[in-house]
Amino acid sequence: MRVSVIGAGRVDEGTAAVAEELGRLLGGRGHTLVCGGRGGVMRAACRGARGSGAETVGILPSADPAEANEYVTVPVATGLGHARNALVPLNGDAVVAVTGGPGTLSEIGFALVYGRPVAGLATHEIDGIEACDSPAAAVEYVEHAVDTGAVEGAGGGD
Amino acid sequence: MRVSVIGAGRVDEGTAAVAEELGRLLGGRGHTLVCGGRGGVMRAACRGARGSGAETVGILPSADPAEANEYVTVPVATGLGHARNALVPLNGDAVVAVTGGPGTLSEIGFALVYGRPVAGLATHEIDGIEACDSPAAAVEYVEHAVDTGAVEGAGGGD
Amino acid sequence: MRVSVIGAGRVDEGTAAVAEELGRLLGGRGHTLVCGGRGGVMRAACRGARGSGAETVGILPSADPAEANEYVTVPVATGLGHARNALVPLNGDAVVAVTGGPGTLSEIGFALVYGRPVAGLATHEIDGIEACDSPAAAVEYVEHAVDTGAVEGAGGGD
Amino acid sequence: MRVSVIGAGRVDEGTAAVAEELGRLLGGRGHTLVCGGRGGVMRAACRGARGSGAETVGILPSADPAEANEYVTVPVATGLGHARNALVPLNGDAVVAVTGGPGTLSEIGFALVYGRPVAGLATHEIDGIEACDSPAAAVEYVEHAVDTGAVEGAGGGD
Repeated sequence: MRVSVIGAGRVDEGTAAVAEELGRLLGGRGHTLVCGGRGGVMRAACRGARGSGAETVGILPSADPAEANEYVTVPVATGLGHARNALVPLNGDAVVAVTGGPGTLSEIGFALVYGRPVAGLATHEIDGIEACDSPAAAVEYVEHAVDTGAVEGAGGGD
Repeated sequence: MRVSVIGAGRVDEGTAAVAEELGRLLGGRGHTLVCGGRGGVMRAACRGARGSGAETVGILPSADPAEANEYVTVPVATGLGHARNALVPLNGDAVVAVTGGPGTLSEIGFALVYGRPVAGLATHEIDGIEACDSPAAAVEYVEHAVDTGAVEGAGGGD
Repeated sequence: MRVSVIGAGRVDEGTAAVAEELGRLLGGRGHTLVCGGRGGVMRAACRGARGSGAETVGILPSADPAEANEYVTVPVATGLGHARNALVPLNGDAVVAVTGGPGTLSEIGFALVYGRPVAGLATHEIDGIEACDSPAAAVEYVEHAVDTGAVEGAGGGD
Repeated sequence: MRVSVIGAGRVDEGTAAVAEELGRLLGGRGHTLVCGGRGGVMRAACRGARGSGAETVGILPSADPAEANEYVTVPVATGLGHARNALVPLNGDAVVAVTGGPGTLSEIGFALVYGRPVAGLATHEIDGIEACDSPAAAVEYVEHAVDTGAVEGAGGGD
């Protein structure tokens, strides 16, 4: 399946290590990574996924595909600015949030609008997000949620 | 100034009364109302603003300007679906959230990305939102925040 | 009704005079002007419409409402970049194109996708555009086309 | 490089054969195909590209990745409706148009806005499009144009 990884564009080493481990696990399980294509959590997760040989889709705010980080295999330029935040969770069957500020919050909102299961690692505490204490737990949660269809359709538009 | 009012698309009578009072106060203070143009909180706030003679801008997800509620004076069709949520807080100098589900959460995220002050009435508890206990308090908060520039530039993109 | 005026962002004095006359006539006939909110044809048409007391909606590519020209009464910031070109013809019941380059071409395409009648003044020669030799002829054409529903639904998506 | 193929969503057998041959040639030359992900020209070109083992990116108007045709390897759902037309030419280094109606016209406009070379096969006659008489000629044109940077930067925004 495809899993969207969202989170801060600038991170410390500890958070980067968590995001990279998450990407590595997702890739190793045969999943495609979707993200916003830029730095921080996005770059670290892509790097991990590439280490597992997975494909990585980066949906960028700018109109320049070259702004994708070096671990993105399929850059998608949008030129939409922040409105591209709607597209990142939409293109995952599930979402994992790793830390993150207000942009990540908007993506979590869209994830829930689209009925996607969301696992959280040290991110916003929001009803509907499953707080997990490790990348492995987050992967297990989203795989289980998608397999059982537990969340599909739970979201609303408003 | 312009104030964006966001919130649930279907509401009970009590919430509608709060949103209408909010719109009435904003209009009475000379502000233009911006919203998503549809029902629930949006319609009630527009109704209140129109009662004060204010202009009301409704930025719609659909491609049909006729889907605006009857109290919208300037409908803006987008055809962007949920991605239009980025445009609603962007077009207010400040934002007031009244209740609301995941779509409202995405709009709150964008409001903070764009550095808009946000007052909340019985809505998501998020860092950066000023929880208010009445429409009057919400109006006072956003007027003061914009006047003093307290929030401008506080947001980040991620 | 609402009429979208599209065209080049930088124009010579002759073209500006045509666009201003167009705006003046549309405003004098009670129509609201919709445009991209910037310079050239857009600014001149807004100036004309304001001279007739009409409302002018400017749908901007940037995220800054202050980038609207000084004759726009309702700026709508989008932050969508060029993709905002889809929104300009959508929000008019009809479209008038005055000169214009590739951006205007994309807007003409959307006008036809949405089934809007399009009058042209010294613009692209495209099947489906009514070439007119004066602003008065363009106004007459779009009023007649909307009144008779001659074009509505003629467009397709591809 | 990446080449965007645009054109009508419903086509006759002759046009489908042209689009499939185009996709086959592009894939055989090592290029990735980008398109709108749906039927007609898009599906035929993807089918050809897949026959050559190429990757195919389908940028969809709807919010449902499953609406991509069966030859798309990387579906990108947008939920943006017709505004997604801006994203299709943006994500190719060059564009080939095969027949097409008003939606294709909007995509040609964006291709020129973004300074992309455009080859045309029985499509709109527009200044800036190189009319070609075969898929092979179209591939040769876009390869040459990108190699020599002949078009880059030629477009403007209006």
